Amino acid sequence: MYIILVYDIGEKRVGKMLKLCRKYLNWIQNSVFEGEITEVKYKELIINAKKIMKIEEDSLIVFKSREEKWLDKEVIGQEKNDLDTFL
Amino acid sequence: MYIILVYDIGEKRVGKMLKLCRKYLNWIQNSVFEGEITEVKYKELIINAKKIMKIEEDSLIVFKSREEKWLDKEVIGQEKNDLDTFL
Repeated sequence: MYIILVYDIGEKRVGKMLKLCRKYLNWIQNSVFEGEITEVKYKELIINAKKIMKIEEDSLIVFKSREEKWLDKEVIGQEKNDLDTFL
Repeated sequence: MYIILVYDIGEKRVGKMLKLCRKYLNWIQNSVFEGEITEVKYKELIINAKKIMKIEEDSLIVFKSREEKWLDKEVIGQEKNDLDTFL
């Protein structure tokens, strides 16, 4: 499946969360990630995210679509691209 | 159509952008909005957003789906709900 993940995490925990999400997804904006992921990998990601989060303060929202083609993306201004780091 | 809008905007401009987006969409996380919007209203929103943004610094990403049912949403931790303010 294809997912969009956005988080709002306390400053102390944000570095860990960023590192975790980049293992599974493409980083496209400050706290926004997207990508294809299997159900198994997704569950793993969420379990690990919950270990980092303070549930009463932090927020993690995931939008899931069975297929990427059901979503159009429009970018205005700057888009991060994780692939840049390999060029 | 149903959209998810996420922005990463310089601090000086973020208040204006928040106000603008709340006119059109539901605020669900710090810089994340979702909602049903017509093509006409969407164009209006983007035109106004561009007036606020510094294109070389800021980022606005919109995911569009023809129908909300094509997307599942999972929330872990806190979710903002604009409706709260009316209760």
